[in-house]
Amino acid sequence: MTTRTAAHLVIGNELLSGKIQDANTLTLANTLRPLGIALRRVVVVPDEVALIAAEANALRATHDYVFTSGGVGPTHDDVTVEALAHALGRRVVRSPEIESLLRAHYGDALTDGHLCMANIVEGTRLHSGLDPKWPTMVLGNVFVLPGVPEIYRYKLDGLLGLLRGDDAPFVTHRVYLDRDEGALKPYLDAVVQAFADVAVGSYPRWRDPEYSVMVTFDGRDEARVIAALQHFVAAVPEGSVLRTS
Amino acid sequence: MTTRTAAHLVIGNELLSGKIQDANTLTLANTLRPLGIALRRVVVVPDEVALIAAEANALRATHDYVFTSGGVGPTHDDVTVEALAHALGRRVVRSPEIESLLRAHYGDALTDGHLCMANIVEGTRLHSGLDPKWPTMVLGNVFVLPGVPEIYRYKLDGLLGLLRGDDAPFVTHRVYLDRDEGALKPYLDAVVQAFADVAVGSYPRWRDPEYSVMVTFDGRDEARVIAALQHFVAAVPEGSVLRTS
Repeated sequence: MTTRTAAHLVIGNELLSGKIQDANTLTLANTLRPLGIALRRVVVVPDEVALIAAEANALRATHDYVFTSGGVGPTHDDVTVEALAHALGRRVVRSPEIESLLRAHYGDALTDGHLCMANIVEGTRLHSGLDPKWPTMVLGNVFVLPGVPEIYRYKLDGLLGLLRGDDAPFVTHRVYLDRDEGALKPYLDAVVQAFADVAVGSYPRWRDPEYSVMVTFDGRDEARVIAALQHFVAAVPEGSVLRTS
Repeated sequence: MTTRTAAHLVIGNELLSGKIQDANTLTLANTLRPLGIALRRVVVVPDEVALIAAEANALRATHDYVFTSGGVGPTHDDVTVEALAHALGRRVVRSPEIESLLRAHYGDALTDGHLCMANIVEGTRLHSGLDPKWPTMVLGNVFVLPGVPEIYRYKLDGLLGLLRGDDAPFVTHRVYLDRDEGALKPYLDAVVQAFADVAVGSYPRWRDPEYSVMVTFDGRDEARVIAALQHFVAAVPEGSVLRTS
């Protein structure tokens, strides 16, 4: 099974200065899993054209899909479109389609500021998604999404039709245990060895009354994922497993 | 004013597969701001030695400090130490100091699995931090932190003595408005033009009853930050400002 890959390019000084916590990576990861697409890399950069452009070029060359988050509003710190133009060696042009959508939306309240949102990279494909009034910019394998989490999620949902293939989804099964990782290590090593096609993760908790370690089994062949879990559960010392899910 | 820079190398399949949301970047950002250190880049990579090693080398060459998060436990998916050894071209060796700490902590329950946590990159400096029983690995300008958020925070606090300089802290002042970004754009452009040394950010909210846009003013010279905020507040149309903080 080959796996399609994706990268997330998250743009915004507010994430690097601790003003907000990025929520869009979790949204993206959880959207891509059922599609069988593996999120392989996330990079957070400031609102700087040269940095965004360099990263966009690096990511789009090495992943099947790149999703950008943030920097698409009308203000001075919204430089994603300019950066992508720079990355692709293209011009920024005014989109008549978006301009007329903006005029219809804002009416008499429309300002030159609002019209900046009609600036796109030459050659951008506008994908209508869920709402034809708010199309999403697509540049080859780069999908340009806004930073505001609610709108990010809404626009990403609108891309599902483009992203859906016939790949099996990634699935996860979990085991919760009351032993520490040091004690579980030999059993983990054994299942990792026996199931090379299943990704096994071990996540300790810090003073959690519910459990000590969660062990996860991930893959796109669910029968193998379940077999790996059962192999592990059968091997660990009796009484270590609290529950599975 | 020159500014010390930092990067965050976040390691873990669980972040890329949507199992958990990274909380440590926010902790790091908010810890570095009062020290006057600018977090410039965050990269999230899977539990793979080659990827972690390449990224560690790229980041340590381009930033004053690199903080790694995750991958330091005893299990098969904890490969940060091996990756850093690979990055630096050094061996992984057993630390007698950590081994004796582990023996003291676990006593008779000690397993070979636990002892894996005594593996360090040759030449690692062990920094005692807040608790000499749990030293932090420091490799040149690379600080190796665990992924568990509570322990990450605790160990990062233990590094403050190493990171503290005589740099002025970064400060932020905020204005909350009930106008949209399109309408505010000319006033934002004017203050950005007039205060090149202050970073101005504009953050719209989606259907928030409290405010429409938060504008932030960031810098290490607080008098200039406040002057920029006052310049902006005086310029915007009367009645747009809800509050400042």
